[in-house]
Order: sequence, then structure tokens, then C-alpha cells
Amino acid sequence: MSPNVYFVGTRCTGCGASFPPDTDILLCPDCESLVDPVYDLERFRTELPGLELDRRPPSIWKWRELLPVSDFEKIVTLGEGGAPLIACPGLARTLGVRALYVLDDGSSMPTGSLKDRSIAVAATKAVEFGYHALSCDSTGNKGASTAAYAARAGLRSIVFCPWDTPLPKMAQALFYGARVVRVRGHFSEVNAMYRRLLRVDTQGKSPWYDCGTDNPFRYEGKKSYAYEIAEALDGVAPTRVFHPAAGCMSLVKMQKGFEEMLQLERIDRMPALYACQSEACAPIVKAWESGAATVEGVEKGATVASALAFADPGLLGNATLATLRATSGGAVSVGDDELLAAWKELGRSGIFCEPSAAISLAAAQRLAESGELDSDDVLVCNVTGSGFKDMETLLKNVVVPETIVESYDELRALVREL
Amino acid sequence: MSPNVYFVGTRCTGCGASFPPDTDILLCPDCESLVDPVYDLERFRTELPGLELDRRPPSIWKWRELLPVSDFEKIVTLGEGGAPLIACPGLARTLGVRALYVLDDGSSMPTGSLKDRSIAVAATKAVEFGYHALSCDSTGNKGASTAAYAARAGLRSIVFCPWDTPLPKMAQALFYGARVVRVRGHFSEVNAMYRRLLRVDTQGKSPWYDCGTDNPFRYEGKKSYAYEIAEALDGVAPTRVFHPAAGCMSLVKMQKGFEEMLQLERIDRMPALYACQSEACAPIVKAWESGAATVEGVEKGATVASALAFADPGLLGNATLATLRATSGGAVSVGDDELLAAWKELGRSGIFCEPSAAISLAAAQRLAESGELDSDDVLVCNVTGSGFKDMETLLKNVVVPETIVESYDELRALVREL
Repeated sequence: MSPNVYFVGTRCTGCGASFPPDTDILLCPDCESLVDPVYDLERFRTELPGLELDRRPPSIWKWRELLPVSDFEKIVTLGEGGAPLIACPGLARTLGVRALYVLDDGSSMPTGSLKDRSIAVAATKAVEFGYHALSCDSTGNKGASTAAYAARAGLRSIVFCPWDTPLPKMAQALFYGARVVRVRGHFSEVNAMYRRLLRVDTQGKSPWYDCGTDNPFRYEGKKSYAYEIAEALDGVAPTRVFHPAAGCMSLVKMQKGFEEMLQLERIDRMPALYACQSEACAPIVKAWESGAATVEGVEKGATVASALAFADPGLLGNATLATLRATSGGAVSVGDDELLAAWKELGRSGIFCEPSAAISLAAAQRLAESGELDSDDVLVCNVTGSGFKDMETLLKNVVVPETIVESYDELRALVREL
Repeated sequence: MSPNVYFVGTRCTGCGASFPPDTDILLCPDCESLVDPVYDLERFRTELPGLELDRRPPSIWKWRELLPVSDFEKIVTLGEGGAPLIACPGLARTLGVRALYVLDDGSSMPTGSLKDRSIAVAATKAVEFGYHALSCDSTGNKGASTAAYAARAGLRSIVFCPWDTPLPKMAQALFYGARVVRVRGHFSEVNAMYRRLLRVDTQGKSPWYDCGTDNPFRYEGKKSYAYEIAEALDGVAPTRVFHPAAGCMSLVKMQKGFEEMLQLERIDRMPALYACQSEACAPIVKAWESGAATVEGVEKGATVASALAFADPGLLGNATLATLRATSGGAVSVGDDELLAAWKELGRSGIFCEPSAAISLAAAQRLAESGELDSDDVLVCNVTGSGFKDMETLLKNVVVPETIVESYDELRALVREL
């Protein structure tokens, strides 16, 4: 055993109840609020120089002392994290800001989406707690990731997804060996049934380890965004970070990660954090704009950003609202037209992402157009999934040449025209 | 300008002629042999401690002094390299060896394949030489990569590919903005026409920078395999490295990279290098087994490993043969059945690659079965492309459940059976 002395337990964000680090917990058993892992940050700060973090490869485990795992020997990893932060001076000029960076998860995640940052932590907890299987509810990406890490850890996996989940995403989960269960309904409905199954029917004693929407350990993996951005920018934090929002615990955990970096004197300021949603399904934006304290469910319309269409994010949405307020950020929705335009713009910059993931750039562009950005701004747009995740939309948006060159003479003639 | 003082020029592998570092060169103008970049390795060895390489992030540019670029400020990058080396103890047991690692390029390359390691270098040279466009011949992956790095560098791109190149691979190149030209014929024929176009018709003054099969700068990017493997294994080199072989300059450059690591005292021994090909198109294996000094073209049969089907690799094949001999390695061919079995095995280990890329594991398994491996062996299998690169084969090999669960009661009943 290689113990993590800095992870000291979890605490309920509602009633404040505390739980020891070895407690297998999802929501607070007393008040049903989200719980949050706690670390001995002061001790970590003191001992940090001796840990030689700078020499570790950039994965989510580089800052493993600030992840809620108790035994480093049990870490389940496929090399997730260490996404490149790509400077895009052309886009910065277009938006009239000092700098714009794209954090390209799609090109550095084993299963092609941001889910790997969090599922790697969940799989590690499953091994620590002695489970034999992982489970999750998913619109596709989380299922593929859960299946991959289960395979890596030698566990079984079961994925519950809306019946109309894109075939390739289901196929990926199946390839890793998952049992895939298709459920009639959209994601909020599947999510409700899945929670009921795991909580009510098993009295919290599910035989599968839940990598779904309430797992407090899983979400901590998303703090790695803050660590990676802080390190890539050499301690000068961006002014604003834009993130594609379903739940969106990524923003909540980025806030936590940036606050830790600030306390560790690894950055100089907190960035403002922005939730980016599709106009067709924007419960967080609706709550933000109306000044509500909680997020209400909405009707889900049709959008190309299917991975973000979480119509009723519940507690997660409320936590996100609090983060947007605390960091002086905001919530922005865009239409599919803007989204697809931003996606193509990324392609012309050499970045191939799934259309949903381009929403962070589309939202930044929307703010630029409405005059809310400054010329001094340094923006980071998190691009959270690979272009390979949605080839259907890609094939609809390019024109594959029908002409076939039949001979060398034809080739030479064609080339002379170019 | 940030000059690279260690890159001192290129040398012809045939006649030994030398060229200054700023020479825009493909094959030797005198004898048509491959040319090879040369470095002042002794100076680099002396000055290495002061360069603090350990603090650089693991990309192909970590060892940038040993890449044939003259100005570090002109580097064109999308964060390529730093692939995870994943220990697979289960597979090691099955093969009866001490350890087996999978180097997973698919999960760390911006465009999803190994080509990014070399095209990033080619794009940088194009910028150094002042070109406005990149071109290549491709079975799909190289084209996507060339298009991505052209976009990143603000250059145009043109890709020549066999008419039956998989649609998604063409679509990816088109998304980045490439002009895609489909040519009747298989890759060897396209390759011959492309060379004729660039060499004969333009008298070597092509307006596009050739990222195709003879570019000596591009290939140097493949040395990064050796650097990454050496570093990930902490200086203890593997005994054997298996690599999917089309050309296959990756093996030639891995030999060079491992020799450099040996001279820099970063590893303790040279590994044996293996070229892995499909039985349906195995010109290198045929030459190796017959003891021939040069590789002759073969008839290309049908295989799922379309990315490797280079029927007449010419000079590249000859160079590869020399590497196999020099490192006491070998050449191994496997059938599609073995290849697909190895591919599924990787899936059950949490690794999602394109079927072609699993040929390195299939070849290692073939050697294990024929008793040629030792219990002390430490193997590395390079897995060179993402599973997303061939979704067609994936969809043929998984069974997507047709049943759709219609209600919570049905869900509960189904789950009780599990």
C-alpha cells in the first residue's frame, strides 16, 4: 500500500456532516446533498517541494495527492490527462482579446472525451472499495469511458443509455466489453430510472460501483483542468474559462482546483468560469438569466449537441450556478448555427472536435459580439471531445469529391489547374 | 529566431554526400538514396544537463535538439507525442514474458494516428523553407495529419489518395480544409504517380512541400518512439519492440533513436526491432524470410489492415531490412483472424485501436506461440492508430442490443437477471 495522507475524508455540502476517507458514499445519507472530498492542503503545501511534482508526467495523476484516492498503488489509469493547451492567435484577433487557448481533450483522452478524467478516479475507488463491476447512465461518452476503465481494472461494466444513443458510442462501450442497456426516454428520464434502481431498489447496496451523476470521487478528476491550465500558462491564470455544460460539475471542480492552485501560490488570480449550453436545452442558462437560486428542468429541443442535452440537471445544476456566481462568470447559450460555425473554425485551426465540444468557442464568440470581452482578456476554451465522437455530423458537413482521377495524364492536368 | 545548434545537416545514406542544414532536400540529388539528418551528438551530450529536458512536457519536441529543425520558434505543434506506455500484466502472462507494454499512440495523437509524430516535423520544415502548401500521398491517416498541420500553420494542403480510401479518413482531411484528390489504383500506384508528379514534372521545384514517402525530415519525428519508451521505462530498454509496418521508416528511426539514447547513456541496451505485416501484403516479411538484400514488390491481397498495405515500399523497405538485421530483430506476418483476435484482446484491456494497429500484439503472440520469446523478455507493442479510425470494422464486430427497455419495471426485471 502507498497511502495518500492528504486525502482526509468527505464533507456534505448541505448539512456539513463529515465522513472518513474510506467511506463508500454517493450523496449525503442524511440530507441527500452532494458531498465533497477534503484534503489537508496546508500539509500538502508544506511538503509540496519534496514531492517533486515537476518531474511527473502531465496526467490527471500528476497532482494525485489532491485526488480522493487512499492507495496510490490501486490507481487505474490509461494515461488520461495532460491535454495540450493550444494558442490560437488568429482566433484571439477575431475576438479582439489578448490571447485565446484551446484545451484539446479530444486529442489526449484514451476514449476520446473528457469523461476519462473522472472515470479513472471512479474506477480507482471501485478497486479500493472491492467492487467487481462499474455502472453508469450515459448519453454515450461516459458509457464508453466507464467500459474502458472497467476493462483496464479487470472489472465488468454495465451502461444505461437512451435508446437513441449514437450507434458508434454504444459500439465503443461494447468493444471494451460492457453490457449496454438501452432505455426508452431521453437522458433525464434514464438518469431518474437509473438513480431509482441504484438507490431505492438496492437500498444503496448496489453490486455495481456507480460512476454516474452523483459520485463525489469521480468529479474530483475534473479539477485536473485547473491544474493543467495553471501549469501550461506558467502560473498566469486566464481571465475567463469556457466549458461545455451538461451538469456541469466540471465548472464546480474547476473552481475548486483553481482555488487550490491559488492557495498553493501556483496562480495569481481566479478566472471567471462560464457554462456553455445549446439554446435547445439550456436549463442552467435559463436559471442564470432569471437570477434563480436553483435550476429547473426544461423541455429538451433538438440540437446537434446531444452530449450536452441534460434537461434537468438537479443538484449538479445548482452547484454550477453557485460556481458561476462565486467566480463572477456566467452562462451562455448558442444556437446550432453558431455552434457549427465555431466547430468549422476549430477545424481550420487544426483542431478536430465533436460539434458539442466547440460550444465553448461559440459562447466566447457570442460574448465578444455583445461587447462583454476586454482587449486584455486571456481566454481558455475547453474542447472536451474528439471529432471522431460524431462522424455522422462530420460526413454531413464535408463534400467528399466524387471525381476519380483515372490516369497520370489526368492527374497532371488537374494539378495544373490548382 | 531560436536556433538549433545541434542539427548540423543531412548526409546521403548511399554516396555519403553532405548537405548543410538549410538545404531543402528529399532524396539525394546525386544517387537518389535516402538522406539522413545529422546532429552534433557529442556537444548535445555535454550540454544536456543544462537543457533541463526533464522539466519539459513529454511531446515529440521534448528532445527537439535531436530533430532536424533549425529554428525552434517556427515549430508547428498540436501537442503530439507523449503517448502512454501501458503495462498489460495479463497479456504478459498469456505470452509467457516478464512484461508487455502497449504504447498507445491512438489516445495521444491530435489526428488519431502516428503520422502526427512525423508530419509535425514536416510542417515545421515547410514553414522554415517558406512554402505555402503541404502535399502528400496517403492511404488516409497521413492525409488527415498533413491537413491538420497545414491548418495549424496557416498553409494550404493537398492530399492524393487511392480512390477507395475510407470515407471517414477523407472527411477528416476535408474538415481541416484539405483538397483531396482520389486516384484510381492502390497505394503503390498512387505513390508512383505522386512521385513522378513532384519530381519529374516540376524538376524538383514543387510549389507544395512534400510530406510524402521520401521526406528525410519528417521521418526523424519517429525517433520520438525510442525517446518515449526509454524514458517511460526509466532507462531499462525493452528486449523487443514490435511495430506495424507499411514502409516502415518508423523502425529505421527507432533504431537511430535508441542508438542516440544509448550514446547519451539513457538506456542500457539496444532492443530487437520487429516489422509486423499482414499476410495479405507482406513484402518486407517476404524479403526477410528469403534472406534477400532488397525488398521486391508483391501483389496486394485483401486485408482489414488497409493502412499497412504498401505493396512496394522500395527504398524504405530496404532501409527497414537493414534495421531488422542490425538490431537482431525480425519480420512477422499474421492473418486477419489473428489480427482481429489481438484487436479484441486489446479492447478487453481497455485499449481502443484501429485493427491494423493491433498487428504488433498479434505478431508478438505469433512469436510466443512458436517459442521464440524468453520468460525474461520485456516487450513493447506500438499501437499506432485510434479505434475511431476504423469504425466500419468495429460496427461489424460488436452486437448492438436491439431490445429497448420501455419502463422502470422492465428495467428492474432485466437487471435482476444480470
